[in-house]
Amino acid sequence: MTRPQSPPLDGWTAIVLAAGRGTRMRSRLPKVLHPVAGRPMMLHVCDTVRAAGIERIVVVTADADGEVAEAVRAQVPGAAVAPQGEPLGTGHAALAARVAAGDASHLLILNADLPLITERTVRELTQRHLQEHAVLTFLTAYLEDPTGYGRVRRQNGRIHGIVEESDADAVTRGQPEVNAGLYAAEAEWLWPVLADLEPSPRGEVYLTDAIARAVDHPQGAEAYQVVESSEVQQVNTRVELARAEQIMRERIRRRVMLDGVTLVDPATTYIDAGVAIGPDTTLLPGVHLLGSTTVGGGCRIGPSAVVRDSTIGDGCQVGMSTLEGSELAERVTVGPYCHLRPGTRIEADVHLGNYVEVKASRVGARTRVGHFSYIGDADVGADVNIGAGTVTANYDGATKHHTTIGDRAFIGSDSVLIAPVELGADARTGAGTIVTRDVPASARVVGVPGRIREPGEGV
Amino acid sequence: MTRPQSPPLDGWTAIVLAAGRGTRMRSRLPKVLHPVAGRPMMLHVCDTVRAAGIERIVVVTADADGEVAEAVRAQVPGAAVAPQGEPLGTGHAALAARVAAGDASHLLILNADLPLITERTVRELTQRHLQEHAVLTFLTAYLEDPTGYGRVRRQNGRIHGIVEESDADAVTRGQPEVNAGLYAAEAEWLWPVLADLEPSPRGEVYLTDAIARAVDHPQGAEAYQVVESSEVQQVNTRVELARAEQIMRERIRRRVMLDGVTLVDPATTYIDAGVAIGPDTTLLPGVHLLGSTTVGGGCRIGPSAVVRDSTIGDGCQVGMSTLEGSELAERVTVGPYCHLRPGTRIEADVHLGNYVEVKASRVGARTRVGHFSYIGDADVGADVNIGAGTVTANYDGATKHHTTIGDRAFIGSDSVLIAPVELGADARTGAGTIVTRDVPASARVVGVPGRIREPGEGV
Amino acid sequence: MTRPQSPPLDGWTAIVLAAGRGTRMRSRLPKVLHPVAGRPMMLHVCDTVRAAGIERIVVVTADADGEVAEAVRAQVPGAAVAPQGEPLGTGHAALAARVAAGDASHLLILNADLPLITERTVRELTQRHLQEHAVLTFLTAYLEDPTGYGRVRRQNGRIHGIVEESDADAVTRGQPEVNAGLYAAEAEWLWPVLADLEPSPRGEVYLTDAIARAVDHPQGAEAYQVVESSEVQQVNTRVELARAEQIMRERIRRRVMLDGVTLVDPATTYIDAGVAIGPDTTLLPGVHLLGSTTVGGGCRIGPSAVVRDSTIGDGCQVGMSTLEGSELAERVTVGPYCHLRPGTRIEADVHLGNYVEVKASRVGARTRVGHFSYIGDADVGADVNIGAGTVTANYDGATKHHTTIGDRAFIGSDSVLIAPVELGADARTGAGTIVTRDVPASARVVGVPGRIREPGEGV
Repeated sequence: MTRPQSPPLDGWTAIVLAAGRGTRMRSRLPKVLHPVAGRPMMLHVCDTVRAAGIERIVVVTADADGEVAEAVRAQVPGAAVAPQGEPLGTGHAALAARVAAGDASHLLILNADLPLITERTVRELTQRHLQEHAVLTFLTAYLEDPTGYGRVRRQNGRIHGIVEESDADAVTRGQPEVNAGLYAAEAEWLWPVLADLEPSPRGEVYLTDAIARAVDHPQGAEAYQVVESSEVQQVNTRVELARAEQIMRERIRRRVMLDGVTLVDPATTYIDAGVAIGPDTTLLPGVHLLGSTTVGGGCRIGPSAVVRDSTIGDGCQVGMSTLEGSELAERVTVGPYCHLRPGTRIEADVHLGNYVEVKASRVGARTRVGHFSYIGDADVGADVNIGAGTVTANYDGATKHHTTIGDRAFIGSDSVLIAPVELGADARTGAGTIVTRDVPASARVVGVPGRIREPGEGV
Repeated sequence: MTRPQSPPLDGWTAIVLAAGRGTRMRSRLPKVLHPVAGRPMMLHVCDTVRAAGIERIVVVTADADGEVAEAVRAQVPGAAVAPQGEPLGTGHAALAARVAAGDASHLLILNADLPLITERTVRELTQRHLQEHAVLTFLTAYLEDPTGYGRVRRQNGRIHGIVEESDADAVTRGQPEVNAGLYAAEAEWLWPVLADLEPSPRGEVYLTDAIARAVDHPQGAEAYQVVESSEVQQVNTRVELARAEQIMRERIRRRVMLDGVTLVDPATTYIDAGVAIGPDTTLLPGVHLLGSTTVGGGCRIGPSAVVRDSTIGDGCQVGMSTLEGSELAERVTVGPYCHLRPGTRIEADVHLGNYVEVKASRVGARTRVGHFSYIGDADVGADVNIGAGTVTANYDGATKHHTTIGDRAFIGSDSVLIAPVELGADARTGAGTIVTRDVPASARVVGVPGRIREPGEGV
Repeated sequence: MTRPQSPPLDGWTAIVLAAGRGTRMRSRLPKVLHPVAGRPMMLHVCDTVRAAGIERIVVVTADADGEVAEAVRAQVPGAAVAPQGEPLGTGHAALAARVAAGDASHLLILNADLPLITERTVRELTQRHLQEHAVLTFLTAYLEDPTGYGRVRRQNGRIHGIVEESDADAVTRGQPEVNAGLYAAEAEWLWPVLADLEPSPRGEVYLTDAIARAVDHPQGAEAYQVVESSEVQQVNTRVELARAEQIMRERIRRRVMLDGVTLVDPATTYIDAGVAIGPDTTLLPGVHLLGSTTVGGGCRIGPSAVVRDSTIGDGCQVGMSTLEGSELAERVTVGPYCHLRPGTRIEADVHLGNYVEVKASRVGARTRVGHFSYIGDADVGADVNIGAGTVTANYDGATKHHTTIGDRAFIGSDSVLIAPVELGADARTGAGTIVTRDVPASARVVGVPGRIREPGEGV
């Protein structure tokens, strides 16, 4: 996906805290690897940080070689991994990034379970930090239900500290401004502070305690209040995961609608972040556009179509069908109940009717496959007619073989083409023919097994 | 769709303003032709005006022969088209209707992008206008978020004028009563006023300026406040289009539920305005009942069934399937994964199992088509059994041909019936038979190509 | 479904009022038999009462042998039916239970149209009743929209009575605390009171009038206010039925998510009350898990899969498909567009591709059925390959017959196996073969009808 990139933030390093166990997810998968809109939440955070102009990222993980560390190495090019070892609090986690952060002058520290944070918010927070010359600037949010978050204490409007919920009195608990878990800090000031913080009775060091230190510093602490409080939705349970998923999907839906795509029922239209859709395309309810899919303009997709990692040209109509790794040219009609599997390439003006399966094949322009056919490992020419019940028998129990069908061929109903086999241009097969040998151009083949017939001979 | 018609409003002409470009839709299609619940929004407005008792309609369009003008001529019988030419504001647009409006004594002027306005509201507005003897009466609404609308100014409760948002001070902006864009007016008073209004600096004449003139008139201006503010939802973007769609769909859902239909999940049940459904029918999630569809009582439809322009009798069960232009008698069971195409007529107590495609065919009472069959251009009798994989090969590459199957015939699995062909009553085909010639009543045919066998002969 | 059972409430009898006609449902089916989340609402109420520790239930029905009475006898073991006869009000209905209630010391009386009442609320109400030594304790709720409910009148916080909406003045109507229709009472006190209540002008006796009597009693009346007001959602129309359905489904969704199941879009995931799902299973949008279904851990189901009364092992992947009465072992992949019918048993690591129908059959481990096949009344061994278009022709027009396929068999595309028939281990069929006789182990059969070929012979 291409996003507008902010200008680079020089001297900044982002520390992404991804070491938490996330036990409330009740999952074998580490929390930060659970996907939101098709992408692990940790990667959303890294994407956002990079889009906001911070290239250098250190991800603090539980272990040096666990699943999270592997995901960082595989999918966040250039990011460093800093294992925390023992889980001794957020302050301890941030400190684990010290060596990897190197000579950064400014640090952005944020939790990897905040997949909804936007580039704009990261940008605004860093700008506020730089403008105000604070030693630490953190993100706050006004929440209708602040339960579970640390509350912000202000005096005469100035930041006075953070009170953890467990320590808060009734008045403070009723206060809706919370600490959202996103910090910009001066590295030179922060590192020694983190090293010096007093552990809690449970032996943990909290990043929030650094705020108290910043308040006492002459340059002080600053806060930036997020405009859209849904951005700071934390994900600790699958209920919160579902909520984050919904918020992210709604952002995408709104964007594509304003770009000229009709969603008949946005709530049941599922579009992954990387999908591009042309104007005047209509998506009916229950449509899923997933992965790296591109849809042209003037298409009509759905209802209940699933399209993954595919390209659909202008003016296509795709009914209730499943497309994976397929490419459709212009004005192709598909479905209902088709299954296009990876390696499918459908040329312009092709009609695929109902119950058509295509795999690793090309289907030439204007060809019609009306019903109940399996086209696998085949090259089908243009203007071909494939009758109902046609099967390319591509597997002999050991190897997959290839079928070639020439332009304008007419394949009769219930034909089986036993690969490897080649039918020439204008060839015809009778209904129920088992084609075991190549068929010359313009020849007609009928029977079980198929035999070439002279013109005028019967079935 | 039949609605209760209000008594006629004599002397009234409705002017529907449909000339706006609607650029924020980012569409090639003019805004007012975008469908809401399956019907272009302009047509909803015309329907409502007619249902409220105003027969004479003038639609002001951008051009005399653009898409909107064509849609009016094709789909609003008796309505006049008045091209506006240059887009010089709503007052200029209304004035464009003057000739076509003829000798109307009262005018109803409304925007074509208000698809949710109800007959009742139109009726109430016109009644208020007549009762109060105002020269102009307009519709107002209280909106939670009035952004983008002109605000109503009142003094001591009396209408004092409209302030456009751009001209409004903070107090006026905070005022939630807005001008909804629906006007009743005395023709004799309005025409000269419109002709006399001062254009704005951009050269546009605004209908709202007529309100100020009416306020100064001895008979004054009146306002009628809409009861349900969702009725005045404007449609300027696809986001607003989706909202209008949802509101209209919810109205329909509520109506059918109160009439005795169970919607297991109303939010994912899509019913077009013209659809009729009998009591004690259950619609499961993901069902679409579209176009001019009728469903009987005691049916169970879905989940994820799509039914368009079809008639379904009492007591039918339709699973996840697609029906288009089809007719089902009583107690038919269909699906999952069937596709009934236009011209399908299924008689009582038929069972269509999974992966059954029927097109332009009759299927007689109690016949069973269990699996994987294509019945096209065929007449199938009663009490027939169609085996798995049966195909009516109706196309020879040039023409479509017809198949007839007599009552009580038994078609073996994987039979291909090469049309034109006729199988008599009680005929049987063996599995895998390619039927190339007519089969007499009670005969048995087997082989490739099929040959008639004597009783007792093998396959 | 197994719920944690509360300890028994000795001496209590529950009276479930299920005699109402429910005419606003516009249904032939009695209101209390309409299902919510797949189970008649009356049964939800009986389940809840039993789960709360009250074993003895009397259901007051309109007739002694109507549909409701039959449902009670069939589905609420041990419950008594008490016909009300003439519908003369809720007090009259409760009194109809007197004989059947026998020597109960405490009574719990509740309407059968309150399917959302929880075990916890029943428990809390009965505890409050016993602790406060009241003669009658009833459930109240604070409703945002109390329209249609009787309002609670209090003086200095003490219960002073109930005012029916029709008798309420404006102040009382604006009061949001309502009578929810759930009563705990001392039997010894209640029976004579009910017998003594004055009928209304319409001849009806109201249970609410007993509250006034209790207020005058030295032990007084008590109220318990429900924590979650959605529990007292009454169901009088299909609109309210849909709301109750939604609330119950959301409870189930929340529960399974907190237990470690990912719901990508909870709003379109439909899980019946009795379904169990293992951790780290993902349910995609449009999935229905119905009846007595069990899904293992680490599965991926959907989108738009329908699974009813089936068991799915760990690590399975089920695409858009329909499963009924089927059993899948571990790591089975299914779909899209499969239909597994009752009696299907799929062993571990089997792959069923697209358009595969299985009925009353076993499919052995690691077998692959890639496309377009009907496996009915069959026993298929392990490591078998079933080619595209294979049909077990199990029906001869009179009887269903059985097919057996040995381990490692290879069934060529478009084969028809005419049952009864048995193919030995390692048998092979050529494409398009009609198998009419048993095939020995390791033999190869080709043709129409199929003949055994020696090794090296052609098709």
